[in-house]
Amino acid sequence: MFEKVLIANRGEIALRIHRACREMGIQTVAVHSTADADAMHVRLADESVCIGPASARDSYLNIPAILSAAAITGADAIHPGIGFLAENAQFAEMVEVHGFTFIGPTAEHIRVMGDKVTAKRTVLDLGLPCVPGSDGPVPTLEEAAVVAREIGYPVLIKAAAGGGGKGMKVARNPEQLREAYQLARGEARAAFGNDEVYIEKYLGKPRHIEIQLLGDTHGACVHFGERDCSVQRRHQKVVEEAPSPALNAEERAYIGSLAARTAAAIGYRGVGTMEFLYEDGQFYFIEMNTRLQVEHTITEMITGIDLVREQIRVATGAPLGYGQEDIRFQGCSIECRVNAENPETFTPSPGTITGYHAPGGLGVRVDSALYDGYRVPSHYDSLIAKLIVHGTSRNECLMRLRRAIEEYVIGGIDTTLPLHSRIIAEPDFINGQYDIHWLEQLMARK
Amino acid sequence: MFEKVLIANRGEIALRIHRACREMGIQTVAVHSTADADAMHVRLADESVCIGPASARDSYLNIPAILSAAAITGADAIHPGIGFLAENAQFAEMVEVHGFTFIGPTAEHIRVMGDKVTAKRTVLDLGLPCVPGSDGPVPTLEEAAVVAREIGYPVLIKAAAGGGGKGMKVARNPEQLREAYQLARGEARAAFGNDEVYIEKYLGKPRHIEIQLLGDTHGACVHFGERDCSVQRRHQKVVEEAPSPALNAEERAYIGSLAARTAAAIGYRGVGTMEFLYEDGQFYFIEMNTRLQVEHTITEMITGIDLVREQIRVATGAPLGYGQEDIRFQGCSIECRVNAENPETFTPSPGTITGYHAPGGLGVRVDSALYDGYRVPSHYDSLIAKLIVHGTSRNECLMRLRRAIEEYVIGGIDTTLPLHSRIIAEPDFINGQYDIHWLEQLMARK
Repeated sequence: MFEKVLIANRGEIALRIHRACREMGIQTVAVHSTADADAMHVRLADESVCIGPASARDSYLNIPAILSAAAITGADAIHPGIGFLAENAQFAEMVEVHGFTFIGPTAEHIRVMGDKVTAKRTVLDLGLPCVPGSDGPVPTLEEAAVVAREIGYPVLIKAAAGGGGKGMKVARNPEQLREAYQLARGEARAAFGNDEVYIEKYLGKPRHIEIQLLGDTHGACVHFGERDCSVQRRHQKVVEEAPSPALNAEERAYIGSLAARTAAAIGYRGVGTMEFLYEDGQFYFIEMNTRLQVEHTITEMITGIDLVREQIRVATGAPLGYGQEDIRFQGCSIECRVNAENPETFTPSPGTITGYHAPGGLGVRVDSALYDGYRVPSHYDSLIAKLIVHGTSRNECLMRLRRAIEEYVIGGIDTTLPLHSRIIAEPDFINGQYDIHWLEQLMARK
Repeated sequence: MFEKVLIANRGEIALRIHRACREMGIQTVAVHSTADADAMHVRLADESVCIGPASARDSYLNIPAILSAAAITGADAIHPGIGFLAENAQFAEMVEVHGFTFIGPTAEHIRVMGDKVTAKRTVLDLGLPCVPGSDGPVPTLEEAAVVAREIGYPVLIKAAAGGGGKGMKVARNPEQLREAYQLARGEARAAFGNDEVYIEKYLGKPRHIEIQLLGDTHGACVHFGERDCSVQRRHQKVVEEAPSPALNAEERAYIGSLAARTAAAIGYRGVGTMEFLYEDGQFYFIEMNTRLQVEHTITEMITGIDLVREQIRVATGAPLGYGQEDIRFQGCSIECRVNAENPETFTPSPGTITGYHAPGGLGVRVDSALYDGYRVPSHYDSLIAKLIVHGTSRNECLMRLRRAIEEYVIGGIDTTLPLHSRIIAEPDFINGQYDIHWLEQLMARK
């Protein structure tokens, strides 16, 4: 086991990792920018090293400074956390070259799965479904019709050079295809000077379903079920829940074991997540995150397993020690990401916390590095707290969340707590009827 | 289901009940003394009524004031909480007479089980074991020898009129019996003017094991396993854990089902706890608590079931809806009772909280009505917080507890947190080797 771990991150996730280390009897080294000298993870860690000025480029992304801090403090291993250098293959490599253990997958896995094209090719070859479409540009309407018939309507015609929705048209049947095809080409030509278009299956109301995976260095890999992260705004997850209200037991078992088999086939080690779109009973692979995710917490609640502990344990080379059948699921869990933002305009709201009181009691977990008097800096991500509930049923979770939000006091800054109150009161959310567009449509409506 | 519940209590337990009601969609009425006007349960409740001055006799024990508050606010039911009127049969009766539902057992059950002598007689008749002893005073040494041989050495000779350890002697074999018998009689005569003595089996290192029970109004009764509450000081529980590290699966199943059968036989309704001493594989019934217990929390953690919700639900007349086989146990839980006391002298330490920060993260639950700026009044029980952890193993719980205590900030007053740090670092506690005398012996030693 490691004696000392350097935590190359900040905020609630640095605290999360510190807690796991403490509970494993491992000493912790916090690194921080000048803006984070008073951060809670710095206060609680055994040692701390200032690695640079506020700008992340000069501190949390400063590889030489982090490696020096690890050398000076005699750390055995480095945990990259989430964001910053967590999916930087070069960092993973340099950590190992300098004689520390990187608590995460190999640099090779980060590289292969970090590139969406190679990742898709890799998982397709291993049998994971991706969104079906043409193999390349479709030069004629006739060819477009053939592809559309093959993959099934509705289809999306997309500019090859596209982006931002330009040159993107939906066709719901062969009649619509002609016009959509011509319009897409015209728009593509006007916007990008290139009228090549692709065809892909159009998913109108997909859900975001992801599978939590854990592999050891001996070839074993298990999954911890799915998370439904469809409540999103601008591709940022806002509320996550496990299990997904949209899946049945069969679908759950199918996609879980498929993802675990795929990860095992590439010899994946550490925690990782495969993300899928899900619509009409079909899963479509989007990407793999080769790191811990913010929402790992809800998986911990329904399995009782500390995923950060497991991540650290397998990084030492320890075998999993249990199989898929040993992972049991109990109840339901929902997480609300609380951001330091105006809940209507989403303008960042850094500043000093004047009054802080977290909710407590049965089934309530708060992961936050906030404290009374803490100054939320303006330089980083606006996530300041994760409010997580666990209950025997989804309804119990919703009621618990409601009362926990009522109890939660974060004074001095704007937070997205009111947005969460609103979301969990929406009948669509209560009924589990939401897709990845739902929140933005809700915000636009009212 | 009730629409509105009046909570006839204060502090963390009033907040606990408020939370359960909130999560069930039930409105809450807080009652409070003048000393508790700023209490958290008062702030969070839908309505609140001041029922009298600080002295509990004039407020939390003031039955007419509480019944008036229920009438004025239109409450359907009254939850007595823990302590104060929770085991007052007359109160239970008056609540019902005035047309409210008493969230607890019948007045008759409180009466029968509240009297230790009738309780023991009742459960003995139903097959529950009590500490064996003579049926009454033992007038001669010869009779004492017969009884002692029957129940087995060591035995305790106790003054019939006794109390406080006077006239109490242990005999470990027939040779010691003669002297012990004479000494006990002599002491009893001197202390109480009455030299009658009883004989009881002496338990040298008993553990306190209790079984959590829940009965509905239709005759069904289940148990939720045991709690080990052997870490005590002056008969006050200090640390509780579930499951008990001393029991094996067979003993656990035996005493659980025996207690549930006994409770079912008396038609018990609501939550209740049967308390036992346990030594050398034998259980001895001590008493039944016909109410919620402070340490119900650890049972909730290992079963995932909200016991206050269940208590309220069966009080409406709803059937349990599940059987013994549906209650599953997961992992291990430990609770530390945090008191506003000097951790060495146990002198009460009321006062204003200057700085409050509860620990968070995976497997940590805090039940506390403290907040920054709150004034802990001097008039009531010194329990101010319950720090509860849950983990997959006992060792995980111990490590988690250690880091949670490190994180816990309660400024401005003395608390027993340092005592808990000390207890959980003791090898005997870590090994689960403790009995009801252990903590006092530890405190005396150092």
